[in-house]
Amino acid sequence: MNDDLKKYIRNVKDFPKPGIMFRDITTILKDPVAMQLTFEKLFEAAKELKIDKVVGIESRGFIFGALLAQKLNAGFVPVRKPGKLPGETLTETYELEYGKDSIQIHTDAISPGDKVLLHDDLLGTGGTARAAINLINKLGGKVVQASFIVELSFLNGREKIKETPIVCLVDYPTED
Amino acid sequence: MNDDLKKYIRNVKDFPKPGIMFRDITTILKDPVAMQLTFEKLFEAAKELKIDKVVGIESRGFIFGALLAQKLNAGFVPVRKPGKLPGETLTETYELEYGKDSIQIHTDAISPGDKVLLHDDLLGTGGTARAAINLINKLGGKVVQASFIVELSFLNGREKIKETPIVCLVDYPTED
Repeated sequence: MNDDLKKYIRNVKDFPKPGIMFRDITTILKDPVAMQLTFEKLFEAAKELKIDKVVGIESRGFIFGALLAQKLNAGFVPVRKPGKLPGETLTETYELEYGKDSIQIHTDAISPGDKVLLHDDLLGTGGTARAAINLINKLGGKVVQASFIVELSFLNGREKIKETPIVCLVDYPTED
Repeated sequence: MNDDLKKYIRNVKDFPKPGIMFRDITTILKDPVAMQLTFEKLFEAAKELKIDKVVGIESRGFIFGALLAQKLNAGFVPVRKPGKLPGETLTETYELEYGKDSIQIHTDAISPGDKVLLHDDLLGTGGTARAAINLINKLGGKVVQASFIVELSFLNGREKIKETPIVCLVDYPTED
């Protein structure tokens, strides 16, 4: 955990609903120094893993996911909400606090045996990450690391993906 | 226009609705060679422009937008659908074929005088690009280039943003 990044993250009260403290990484993105610092930490953690594909989760996961793919000389694969990917897809549905949500991946995006780095900006309850790992597993890929900028460890997301090596740069152990 | 990239773009019939031929860039993304080729062309076109901020349009515009920001040593600014950006935002509404749509930008994302590169994966009718340029202008930024991977020139999107220097890598002059 690296608290030097925390100062670049903006805290927005009551977003997207009352009682939630939103951790906003756009304040990292708009500052080239903070963006590069974040990138270097994520890249250092993954550079020895011989990654074939970086899977980024829509849509903030696309940002550092693309940067990691380029520097690792790997392909970039988007995981998206239903109806966005035009080719043949695989779908995974997961539980939310109220209701369900789904994500999709192109079936031709991962080849059997691919070593995969999963990336998203934030690890919360782990529901989306779990669903993404399930999709990658079904296509025969192996998730060798899941990396996140922000972890909300009070939501215990690690428990849901505990078979996967996890990298998180900044932790918020409490809601506020 | 560079037809060497066209072979990496997948054509998907009747997506997202009957009669539409969708130009799918995920087949560029999953191939590190094609991704790098695309990136180099976009970067070459912008590298002398002393860009302060790269604005990427949600969500495919985040991918090469982030890569361009990093290499140009510029900040990255997301333009998003309403309700996604947590800070104070500016909103622009634009006409669709049927109905309207809106996009938002953080008001603190662009400083007056910033030289801005606007990036999206595709230039179609130009409605979204026009709205994004309006947002940037209202914050005092100057859009010195708008770059796209794919242009659907039969939709005449260039007309809507003709005051802006435009870079498109691959053109589809007809629908099919």
